[in-house]
Amino acid sequence: MKNMIIASTSTLFDSGYLEYILDDLKSHFSNVQTVLFIPYARPGGITHDEYTERAQAAFSKININVVGLHTFKKADEAIAQAEAIFVGGGNTFVLVSQLYKVNAIQPIIDAVNTGTPYLGTSAGSNICGLTMNTTNDMPIVYPPSFKTLGLVPFNINPHYLDPDTTSKHMGETRETRIKEFMCYNTQPVVGLREGSWLEVKGNDITLKGTLTARIFEHNIEPYEVKPESNLNSLK
Amino acid sequence: MKNMIIASTSTLFDSGYLEYILDDLKSHFSNVQTVLFIPYARPGGITHDEYTERAQAAFSKININVVGLHTFKKADEAIAQAEAIFVGGGNTFVLVSQLYKVNAIQPIIDAVNTGTPYLGTSAGSNICGLTMNTTNDMPIVYPPSFKTLGLVPFNINPHYLDPDTTSKHMGETRETRIKEFMCYNTQPVVGLREGSWLEVKGNDITLKGTLTARIFEHNIEPYEVKPESNLNSLK
Repeated sequence: MKNMIIASTSTLFDSGYLEYILDDLKSHFSNVQTVLFIPYARPGGITHDEYTERAQAAFSKININVVGLHTFKKADEAIAQAEAIFVGGGNTFVLVSQLYKVNAIQPIIDAVNTGTPYLGTSAGSNICGLTMNTTNDMPIVYPPSFKTLGLVPFNINPHYLDPDTTSKHMGETRETRIKEFMCYNTQPVVGLREGSWLEVKGNDITLKGTLTARIFEHNIEPYEVKPESNLNSLK
Repeated sequence: MKNMIIASTSTLFDSGYLEYILDDLKSHFSNVQTVLFIPYARPGGITHDEYTERAQAAFSKININVVGLHTFKKADEAIAQAEAIFVGGGNTFVLVSQLYKVNAIQPIIDAVNTGTPYLGTSAGSNICGLTMNTTNDMPIVYPPSFKTLGLVPFNINPHYLDPDTTSKHMGETRETRIKEFMCYNTQPVVGLREGSWLEVKGNDITLKGTLTARIFEHNIEPYEVKPESNLNSLK
């Protein structure tokens, strides 16, 4: 049975790493002593060790150990034996390239489907969708595929951002970008604002946090769903 | 001999399509009756015909005809015979995918190297660099490669945007994104602000417009260059 937290971001403005969601993580990982951390997204290009230390500092507050996947020789065995998995944010292209390189995609799918608790933030949430086509990240490396974990039957846009009506910059708004995606793809997209997350328990997908989420479906105008909404019918 | 305008954007805030640069286009295309327009980037998912009409409306003001590459059976022949080429903005992933699909990459390189005047805006400028790894666009389709035209010996970041110091959004700034690119790649990146362009005449590359550009080089702190700077040594 799936047991996942798919969070828009790790960090809210003026708050520490994972701080806003730490109480929920405490119950999410209530039976867990050690979390397997996947540091491959390397935010700002930091090393796997540095990133793992950052995760450890946050998880220490709820008395959980963190061990980095990069310290294991065989990624598939480390994932299969993990008590819980946390995939951190950073650059989705870097993350997905490395997951393919160490053959970690299918082992993560198998682990989550057999009940290993999962936490994703930002890039680590984007990969829970069908594809990474709705990431916000710069394509700084070329992954072998944009196909991702498909643990929910839609795509995710983390850090969803409403248009800035005062801006004079001519770059596309997030909504414009996702609407362009809908021209070439049929799966729905869930725009998760910072501070929101999806809770997946078995087949139940629920929007959590205090904010609405923006839903994009093929040939339908984008619409908002409220916190505690059930997204099971979205596919 | 190369003769190119590589522009950050097609459109400035509160101004019409290509309006800010129309005088320069008049001299850039002074001997040209018909421009071959490559509409593949499809901004907002509009059709190739609609996009070509938008380009035609602007070029009519300087008495130049526009014909869309999509109306030709053989892209390579159309490009080889073109008096001039204009690649419009939109989504770089869509543009590059289609350029590979119709085998247009090498014909464009050959045409520009033999003196066919070229204009690129936004995505059409990004592809003038070595790779498309520094596009701002959402990866809504999967191109066969991120390698692009390499008509300048560096990468380009169009619509370069300075950090918004008042923002509470936790997504990466443009500078952070490009610095992440520099962790995995060694070529320089030119961040071109809206209203700026590069003029390429043979081997001379000059920054045009009224704004500075931001230059990222491997293992060097990013720095600004002034308008009329020569970028020939950047590689």
